Amino acid sequence: MRNEEAGLKPIGLITLTTDFGMQDGNVGVMKGVIYGINPQVRIVDLSHDIEPQKITRAAFVLSRHYRYFPAGTIHLVVVDPGVGSERRALIVQTAEAFFVAPDNGLLTYVVHDARRAPEDLHIIAISNPRFWLPHISPVFHGRDIFAPVAAHLSLGVSLFAFGEEVNDLVIFPLPQVERGEGKLRGKVVHIDRFGNLLTNIYRRDLLLLRKIKVKVRDREISRLSRTYADGQEGEVIAYIDSSEELAVAVVNGSARDLLSAQVGDEVEVIGQ
Amino acid sequence: MRNEEAGLKPIGLITLTTDFGMQDGNVGVMKGVIYGINPQVRIVDLSHDIEPQKITRAAFVLSRHYRYFPAGTIHLVVVDPGVGSERRALIVQTAEAFFVAPDNGLLTYVVHDARRAPEDLHIIAISNPRFWLPHISPVFHGRDIFAPVAAHLSLGVSLFAFGEEVNDLVIFPLPQVERGEGKLRGKVVHIDRFGNLLTNIYRRDLLLLRKIKVKVRDREISRLSRTYADGQEGEVIAYIDSSEELAVAVVNGSARDLLSAQVGDEVEVIGQ
Amino acid sequence: MRNEEAGLKPIGLITLTTDFGMQDGNVGVMKGVIYGINPQVRIVDLSHDIEPQKITRAAFVLSRHYRYFPAGTIHLVVVDPGVGSERRALIVQTAEAFFVAPDNGLLTYVVHDARRAPEDLHIIAISNPRFWLPHISPVFHGRDIFAPVAAHLSLGVSLFAFGEEVNDLVIFPLPQVERGEGKLRGKVVHIDRFGNLLTNIYRRDLLLLRKIKVKVRDREISRLSRTYADGQEGEVIAYIDSSEELAVAVVNGSARDLLSAQVGDEVEVIGQ
Repeated sequence: MRNEEAGLKPIGLITLTTDFGMQDGNVGVMKGVIYGINPQVRIVDLSHDIEPQKITRAAFVLSRHYRYFPAGTIHLVVVDPGVGSERRALIVQTAEAFFVAPDNGLLTYVVHDARRAPEDLHIIAISNPRFWLPHISPVFHGRDIFAPVAAHLSLGVSLFAFGEEVNDLVIFPLPQVERGEGKLRGKVVHIDRFGNLLTNIYRRDLLLLRKIKVKVRDREISRLSRTYADGQEGEVIAYIDSSEELAVAVVNGSARDLLSAQVGDEVEVIGQ
Repeated sequence: MRNEEAGLKPIGLITLTTDFGMQDGNVGVMKGVIYGINPQVRIVDLSHDIEPQKITRAAFVLSRHYRYFPAGTIHLVVVDPGVGSERRALIVQTAEAFFVAPDNGLLTYVVHDARRAPEDLHIIAISNPRFWLPHISPVFHGRDIFAPVAAHLSLGVSLFAFGEEVNDLVIFPLPQVERGEGKLRGKVVHIDRFGNLLTNIYRRDLLLLRKIKVKVRDREISRLSRTYADGQEGEVIAYIDSSEELAVAVVNGSARDLLSAQVGDEVEVIGQ
Repeated sequence: MRNEEAGLKPIGLITLTTDFGMQDGNVGVMKGVIYGINPQVRIVDLSHDIEPQKITRAAFVLSRHYRYFPAGTIHLVVVDPGVGSERRALIVQTAEAFFVAPDNGLLTYVVHDARRAPEDLHIIAISNPRFWLPHISPVFHGRDIFAPVAAHLSLGVSLFAFGEEVNDLVIFPLPQVERGEGKLRGKVVHIDRFGNLLTNIYRRDLLLLRKIKVKVRDREISRLSRTYADGQEGEVIAYIDSSEELAVAVVNGSARDLLSAQVGDEVEVIGQ
């Protein structure tokens, strides 16, 4: 009944985001558990190279991509330094997707996005061991609790069978953009494989500025490029990245290396 | 007939463990061969980051995870420094699973586990080229022999069609735990992505010790923690890892880095 | 109609080759887009560890493996420094497979191979936005154009629905082998995970030489080995690698490290 109320139905597609790396087999074993419960499900690796225990990084990577998956996809996210402690385990349903994760801030962006449709948000504190493996290691809930819960969810088990609905979850403060007169100050929040610097300033933040300069590290970039090929080889450019973030790149090079940039570096946008 | 005797049936799930890395496409091409034979099979990567030629490492990674896969899963393991030589190629069936691998020790733990149900153990020396690719490179049996054999096995081809049953296979000596009066001495056998040190001492080895101290490198750890969160940030803890191994970690840090630890380091457990 | 003419039918198997790495989720999101369009498709990662912007490297990796996939497989290749510029996006059909890629040389080897059956070669310049995502980022056509095009292709949409057939595409000059009297001079074109050096000299180039010596860096190798186990531990050997390339390895070691070798190094073969 309540599942009917809840609207969105889970589909047989599960994504995995962890800080496990691929070398130890800990991702593979979660897939073994999932296929043992739902042999028909599809599984997509989103990232397993999150730096150990970096909840904010995993939350950001997930936030960039989840809306491109079909409605009803189940996103399983396990960066879990508090595994085996009193921290809760959650299923979160939004208007678009399902999320299975420890309650430690991993779903901060997801819940922030969901504030536009709060009536579609459901948060379940996982408590029913019927959907877990019979033996639970206190250091690997990914395998013993989260994977089997996601697999059962993908089979259509009602959200409310896994535990009680609750009203809150842990979120971390999102890095804020400071707004001055014709000016914005943000931060580098992610550096990608190409050494591109992604910031917490979004295209929408720039709408009122007609023409902009971007400052990061010791560089001043005097215009917004549309894409890499608009710059010369080796040029530092500012552009809007694929999830609408203001970003800084070096054409066919690495902004991280050229500018010795790090996550947390200040980025300033000045309207002209 | 003989397959009926053999009991367990292979299912359409194949895991891959290799030392190929992901960069050269050698894992992908094995999947291409498999899907060409059985388009319906599921494939799970267990690990491809085994250090080149490290048979003992691959054997250990496989041993930690294979029992979490559904019964009848086919585990394909290719760390194969002797490829193209006289070393045999094997299919091994146990009460729980199937294994396809070169005969070089990769299945040491698997056969050790299977000694409890020796009547369910079957070892086949692969010899029938009917189930191989038509052209065999002497340096890539993973693609040309092992992948197609695993794929045909997943289609239900009888184990005994691939070659003759044999009675032995290559195993390496498992690292032994030395037992003294209220004392155990083992080794670090694996260091995971988090820098946690996994040992060859298991929970069952500790059962008779009421209270323990653990010594590794220059550290003495005075108790067994249940999980990471039982320690303080940066504390060195001993705990039972997810496959029942005694392990040493640094809370939200790396025991490998803090203790300059390596595989092979001695670990001592002292009962109190 | 024209698809009937075109002969080969796409199957529900897509491979991915990119320079995205796995850490940022950019590969995962492409899979999300693909599964949203064709939930039944299989996806195989060929390599995502191509060095950023290294078109020649991706082209080579693809060329070694694509013929081992079942006929009709769709190979999606995205190394795309010109994304968002005027560079074209292509679908290429050969007698064996389909390729979806930016028009920047990635399909050089594929088209070179296809010259044997030119009547089966079709090149389509992608132009019909009906098969793209509704919003196109100028820096991520992999997600917004290539992935959905490949997915629709896998559903059986006619090649000719995606755009106009054209007669040419960008190719780069393949590294040539210099042939002298009883002598060949080529180059190291790829170094694999094991540190093996793959060259642009193929087995067929050696057919007329009865007995050979191979020179690379300061080493002279006096014979062709069949496989690694034919040499002693640590010995530098020459052999024919799994895609018929002349290659140089160190037995249970790394030729790259021992010889300080790099892509581009000269390799000389001297007949005796």
